[in-house]
Amino acid sequence: MSRHFNFAAGPAALPLPVLERVADEMSDWNGEGASVMELSHRGKAFEALAAKIEANLRALLAIPEDYAVLFLQGGAAQHFVQIPMNIAGPDASADYVLTGHWSERAERAASQICTTRVAATSAASGYRGLPAADGYDFDPNAAYVHLTPNETIHGVEFHGLPDTGSVPLVADMSSTLLSRPLEVSRYGILYACAQKNIGPSGLVLLIIRRDLLARSPASLPEIFRYDRHAANGSMLNTPPTFAWYVAGLVFDWLRDQGGLAAMAELNQAKSAALYAAIDASGGFYSNPVDPEARSWMNVPFRLHDESLDALFMSEAKAQGLIGLKGHRVVGGMRASLYNAMPMAGAQALIGFMADFARRHG
Amino acid sequence: MSRHFNFAAGPAALPLPVLERVADEMSDWNGEGASVMELSHRGKAFEALAAKIEANLRALLAIPEDYAVLFLQGGAAQHFVQIPMNIAGPDASADYVLTGHWSERAERAASQICTTRVAATSAASGYRGLPAADGYDFDPNAAYVHLTPNETIHGVEFHGLPDTGSVPLVADMSSTLLSRPLEVSRYGILYACAQKNIGPSGLVLLIIRRDLLARSPASLPEIFRYDRHAANGSMLNTPPTFAWYVAGLVFDWLRDQGGLAAMAELNQAKSAALYAAIDASGGFYSNPVDPEARSWMNVPFRLHDESLDALFMSEAKAQGLIGLKGHRVVGGMRASLYNAMPMAGAQALIGFMADFARRHG
Repeated sequence: MSRHFNFAAGPAALPLPVLERVADEMSDWNGEGASVMELSHRGKAFEALAAKIEANLRALLAIPEDYAVLFLQGGAAQHFVQIPMNIAGPDASADYVLTGHWSERAERAASQICTTRVAATSAASGYRGLPAADGYDFDPNAAYVHLTPNETIHGVEFHGLPDTGSVPLVADMSSTLLSRPLEVSRYGILYACAQKNIGPSGLVLLIIRRDLLARSPASLPEIFRYDRHAANGSMLNTPPTFAWYVAGLVFDWLRDQGGLAAMAELNQAKSAALYAAIDASGGFYSNPVDPEARSWMNVPFRLHDESLDALFMSEAKAQGLIGLKGHRVVGGMRASLYNAMPMAGAQALIGFMADFARRHG
Repeated sequence: MSRHFNFAAGPAALPLPVLERVADEMSDWNGEGASVMELSHRGKAFEALAAKIEANLRALLAIPEDYAVLFLQGGAAQHFVQIPMNIAGPDASADYVLTGHWSERAERAASQICTTRVAATSAASGYRGLPAADGYDFDPNAAYVHLTPNETIHGVEFHGLPDTGSVPLVADMSSTLLSRPLEVSRYGILYACAQKNIGPSGLVLLIIRRDLLARSPASLPEIFRYDRHAANGSMLNTPPTFAWYVAGLVFDWLRDQGGLAAMAELNQAKSAALYAAIDASGGFYSNPVDPEARSWMNVPFRLHDESLDALFMSEAKAQGLIGLKGHRVVGGMRASLYNAMPMAGAQALIGFMADFARRHG
């Protein structure tokens, strides 16, 4: 077995101890004589596991009691639509803050369900930074404000939140949830697809302030209603049990690493080291993002000569550094540095980049 | 490691060789230096895997070229709603054949999207059989006819199809797809959640005649549109890659077992042996279903004295026979005999049942 350093943006690297445990108990989990994925979600063993996983997540994120935690399907893309279906409805208006590809996608999807309004945008800068502090124009009557705290493609991240007053803040935290501590009570809904910091793709975590559950309209088909999922412990229908279980092992691993404060320190240090190397490369590498808004999670970068891109990636792969291809929307390279990427991985990349620049500069 | 015979209705048993292979390549799949669930769905390795899996499924089921194969999320329950959203719409009417709990659920969910009409029902028999051959009243203008070829809870199964004329037949094959050969061209849509005969929960297979894709309305949010999923090779958003990969290993295993004809023979033989044992128990055990409509997949049964139920299940478990608890809707016991249950498992259950009856009869 050989393991590479995997910089993919998602599906992304998982902690090796988690994968080893999954492999160990693949044919016989918890003494049940079956894999966890072969067991009924309504059996005592899985129900106990699910309860333990939720408790561990609540401890990690310090989730207050007045928030429900849902384990859902459909990816963030489905919830771009399902959120307005639940908490806005056709006669309402929702505010969107546009900071890159994913917030644009979220707004476009929601616009088929309710009126959407752009409360702020950094499109004019080519999404190389965040809206100016005085660039927000919130509607106090909006059903919610939607924000994308980290833009996975543009590598732009909020390091502080705008004040939305009493309007619930809905945040797509697909690439940041669990990467650092956060104050849950500042949000109405936090949601994240699993395949960055949580577990396998096919699982969505959605943390919702319980009073918002009352907004789910009775006319909405039950399978789309957050209140019904909450009332059924995320078992309104058969949940993705294997992904849920892997997420639970990731939560255990995070606790063993020292929790989210330790993760924040590590994540900031990894990204700072990589940005410093890019900035010190004399223009051989560049990252276009306003330093104030640079992401800890996703570092897009370009070579000064893009004809070297393919060689860069093939040489990187030969050294065990994979998943570096940039998203097709922006091109170039991207290094994602989620929780499961150790400092040694960031350092190996930095070392390779310096050597490559020396040979091709 | 100890392995039990797992009779759960879903999530259900998977073939042990599949689980062993999954465990073997958990940390390093295909020489990629990463688990398959850590890799980008848009990378060459996963795209090649996805193409191979679809080709293998097409070969197993002899799927004609004018059908698209989609790998989706949301469980059958989401597609109860998504099917009328795509191929009916608010002004259309769809016919439903009611043969048990799941077809009732499908009809109720669809009734929030379009007009639904009961074309036939066996409710009057308590769902102990199928509608009489002359009991069908199809609307020739219906957008589709929905049928549930096997009712997982009631253990009632169609062993032949009613003629729906030119109206497309939509079948929820969650518990039968891949259990035997079938003629795909008789259906407009075949769909199945994975967690019975296919793979882990969180994956839905949907096989759709391509002309029906043209019905998806432009007003429907893209993430719910089958035509958009088809145009994007089921990668409109990040798919559940791990479940997709496990399904592929199950398809390989099915081919190695001799394909679906061999499965049909085995499945019929397992269920016939169990029904024979129940019928020969002198009333100690009973199955209420019309022998013509008995399911090969799910065998619900009762003990003559239900105060013995708990003892039956605990003694069965002590002998390594698990997942026998009946669904809460009907109570009693249920033995599910999907593809991954070997004849030895059915025989072990039959042997235990005879012994239990001897001791408590």
